[in-house]
Amino acid sequence: MAKWQQRRSFWTWGYESDEPSDAERKAMAKQVSQRLGREVVPPPVPAIDQIELRAPRLKVPDAMPWVSSEHAERVLHTHGGHSLELLAGLRGEFPEPPDAVAHPRTEDELEATLAWCDTHRYAAIPYGGGTTVVWGVSVPESADAAVTIDLDHLSQVLEIDEISRAVRVQAGMLGPDLEDALRPAGLTLRHFPQSFPWSTVGGWVATRSGGHYATNHTHIDDFVESTRMLTPAGWWESRRLPGSGAGPSPDRLVIGSEGILGIISECWLRVQKRPKFRATAGVVFSSWETAYTATRHIVQAKLWPANLRLLDPLEARQAAGLDGAQALLIIGFESSDVPQDAFMREAVGIARDHGGAIDDADIRIDDGSGKATGREGAVGAWRNAFIGVNAGTTNGLGLLNDTFETAVTWDHWPEFDAHVRAEVGRALNDTLGAGHTLSCRFTHVYPDGPAPYYSFGGVVPLGSELALWREIKAAAVEAVVGAGGTVTHHHAVGRLHAEGWAKQRPALFGEVLRAAKRTLDPNGILNPGVLLDEGN
Amino acid sequence: MAKWQQRRSFWTWGYESDEPSDAERKAMAKQVSQRLGREVVPPPVPAIDQIELRAPRLKVPDAMPWVSSEHAERVLHTHGGHSLELLAGLRGEFPEPPDAVAHPRTEDELEATLAWCDTHRYAAIPYGGGTTVVWGVSVPESADAAVTIDLDHLSQVLEIDEISRAVRVQAGMLGPDLEDALRPAGLTLRHFPQSFPWSTVGGWVATRSGGHYATNHTHIDDFVESTRMLTPAGWWESRRLPGSGAGPSPDRLVIGSEGILGIISECWLRVQKRPKFRATAGVVFSSWETAYTATRHIVQAKLWPANLRLLDPLEARQAAGLDGAQALLIIGFESSDVPQDAFMREAVGIARDHGGAIDDADIRIDDGSGKATGREGAVGAWRNAFIGVNAGTTNGLGLLNDTFETAVTWDHWPEFDAHVRAEVGRALNDTLGAGHTLSCRFTHVYPDGPAPYYSFGGVVPLGSELALWREIKAAAVEAVVGAGGTVTHHHAVGRLHAEGWAKQRPALFGEVLRAAKRTLDPNGILNPGVLLDEGN
Repeated sequence: MAKWQQRRSFWTWGYESDEPSDAERKAMAKQVSQRLGREVVPPPVPAIDQIELRAPRLKVPDAMPWVSSEHAERVLHTHGGHSLELLAGLRGEFPEPPDAVAHPRTEDELEATLAWCDTHRYAAIPYGGGTTVVWGVSVPESADAAVTIDLDHLSQVLEIDEISRAVRVQAGMLGPDLEDALRPAGLTLRHFPQSFPWSTVGGWVATRSGGHYATNHTHIDDFVESTRMLTPAGWWESRRLPGSGAGPSPDRLVIGSEGILGIISECWLRVQKRPKFRATAGVVFSSWETAYTATRHIVQAKLWPANLRLLDPLEARQAAGLDGAQALLIIGFESSDVPQDAFMREAVGIARDHGGAIDDADIRIDDGSGKATGREGAVGAWRNAFIGVNAGTTNGLGLLNDTFETAVTWDHWPEFDAHVRAEVGRALNDTLGAGHTLSCRFTHVYPDGPAPYYSFGGVVPLGSELALWREIKAAAVEAVVGAGGTVTHHHAVGRLHAEGWAKQRPALFGEVLRAAKRTLDPNGILNPGVLLDEGN
Repeated sequence: MAKWQQRRSFWTWGYESDEPSDAERKAMAKQVSQRLGREVVPPPVPAIDQIELRAPRLKVPDAMPWVSSEHAERVLHTHGGHSLELLAGLRGEFPEPPDAVAHPRTEDELEATLAWCDTHRYAAIPYGGGTTVVWGVSVPESADAAVTIDLDHLSQVLEIDEISRAVRVQAGMLGPDLEDALRPAGLTLRHFPQSFPWSTVGGWVATRSGGHYATNHTHIDDFVESTRMLTPAGWWESRRLPGSGAGPSPDRLVIGSEGILGIISECWLRVQKRPKFRATAGVVFSSWETAYTATRHIVQAKLWPANLRLLDPLEARQAAGLDGAQALLIIGFESSDVPQDAFMREAVGIARDHGGAIDDADIRIDDGSGKATGREGAVGAWRNAFIGVNAGTTNGLGLLNDTFETAVTWDHWPEFDAHVRAEVGRALNDTLGAGHTLSCRFTHVYPDGPAPYYSFGGVVPLGSELALWREIKAAAVEAVVGAGGTVTHHHAVGRLHAEGWAKQRPALFGEVLRAAKRTLDPNGILNPGVLLDEGN
């Protein structure tokens, strides 16, 4: 069964096939009970049919068989992928379901859907893969009626240009299906956001998705060669170009528009040959400060490692069993054409110059034959830990875990980090108490600054998850934006970060974006409340 | 004398100090006469005072001593840097001079200038360094009065952040002055457009300037960390961020806006350590086709050479003395931290795999000690040829030379090149006759396509330069845009390419840009006729 034919789970991350069994949930509850010293039990999972929904506020025309107000469709398109949305799902809370869900099978059907929404002023919500963690696909309370538009049937590779190394792909295509389509040609997009199995090409472009790789070209922004987008005012299609200096870039307005300007239907993406040569090393540092200083020097040497992922002492302990004072830097190189051991030696040399420790025998080199030499050292432990726990098993047990991420220039970084840890730490104390955790890693690194990714967690009284989380989240946004960071580096703005983004961007850019929206979406039907406050 | 204190020449490229002497002009005329078989003489250079200008159509307020309607100021700010503008200058043709020229010394003075223009609906024309070759600083005929705004007094480095490797610089700063300011810190912007000695940071950002380097980060787009811009609606300032996924990028709307949305007053630019390790090689190919195929394979290997400049057989003969059938690929690597010989060996290996020839002894390696090993081979000849002829020596002698440049994906490239050569060749035949030349090089190369740069030249009857050039230029734009290229890769749009750009961009993007302009510049005073047709 192709990925797109599977059904999303409404209470765990992923598909119904990813849902943990009752036995797994009970086993996890037992562990958590021991940790808490009191018994918690997994809440019952409601049957979809038992979930209560508001009656649809519109009538789907018979002439549009790809649009449905069916109960399960509406349930499954109510929430995005944030853990608190999954918790709401588990608790049967679906206060703002879409009134209908469209699955257009052609661009004509997409046009008809959007025209129908525009005529009736229904909010039109592009769904992507629904993995948003920033309330990017929620139905706003202000809408009189809303239609969620799911492009899961517009999910084909239309053309592979092996000469230019580019692919023309429909927006609804999921990550694994795209890689499957590229593999026979020896190509890869090499863009692996954490949502990769469930998120779509259109969603990546709309949200400026960040890939798994740490430096140089990794963001979807870099891979977009052209875009095709339907707006209420008509089609918007840019020309396929490897580069252009003609005026401001049209694509750069589409990239990050999060469905408020139009619905991306397809795009050309730059792809590349699959990597064959690899090198990996995990370098240990005696402190966080020496580790991030070394990381800065490595990225500024412009060796462009595929991976340059730094774990602070808490994450290094949790993920790779280090001693709680040491930080761990994972360095990775890869290439389709060029052996990577020389690059790795340079990077490890810089790391050692700045206090990093690694045995030569722990540097793993794959010379392209598929047989690697060298042990994996701390990297192996880290990779195993990365497989992680299925979110569904802990859902509803009274644990609160979330992340926030940003980017900031190196000159501000040490004070920024201290400020964020102090402010968010205070909020965590006030909400989750002393037993909370707060840690940081770098997911991406630029010559002019890191992209730190903070994780926090703790124990929360059942029923107060949302209220306490809001308090913590507000403190995090305030700390991050107040200290000069961006409200989001790759999680997008959605409805969650709209207010924070307004503080960060040039005020006049907000006005220009509103003017752009009025031009393309004069009735303001597209994803209201995302990026810009409502009422635009 | 700092660069900005020198006076631009109105009839040759550069400063008055760059103007050739009468003796040099006569010597060149003698050469040209021999080539043509008839005598040509250099036209007299008019004295600035003798040039006739329309009387100023406005009165400069006494309270604005930085604004002047002085004759020489108006003469020197009438034309940009295109050879036909320099020819007009030489002939004393200044039909559309600005009515006044402002040199604000502070942002307050800049504000006052723009407010004055806005109140009176004077066209406000940001000047940059005046090196535009696309009529980006011309006074439009439609303007009732026009003020050119020259930021030559806002030309300081305000801050160097050595940790993040970034510099805060005022928009009026010239290339050499910026490099001088960065050198003591061991830093460089490493952005060398051909106009580098005379063009400004603000001009680079406004026009999406392309640097000298061939791959990876070379465009000003990549170096911009944040921008500060004055619009009639107020200030626009983005936050310094190494990366951000929050909404569409505000900076990407400023970059390429060519003065129609606001006047860039300063920006933060990413800089880097000065290179120390270098490697250079010139690889010879028996044909254009094998050469560009090899070039594609090298860039797709993602070694990110600093230089990957391909000369077609005609250019390789002219510039490096090859036989007229062979093409020449100049490969260069450089780094502040990492020896480059391994990279060069990989690149040369790929070139050889695809038919390239080079002796090992012709690969020049600088190991960081400053002493290089290896001969320079064809590269030395090429570099010497690059110094070139002072445009002023040939000005007015009846030679027409110009260039146009674009970018296109590799899959279309061979047919595109054939089409452009056929169409432009026909126009050259019709205008300049059989003795014309048409050649091509790649200035920049992307994994998904090259940026070809065409040069043409020939003999033209005195007095008909502009008319014949218009015919050739129209054919070039039609051929390039019609065959799927961009109307400009790095020369910008200006007034010259506005019509071609309209054919290439999404029509709705034009509407959005007009809406953005109405928001920021409601009276439409900023650089009317650039990017968008007039009347916006």
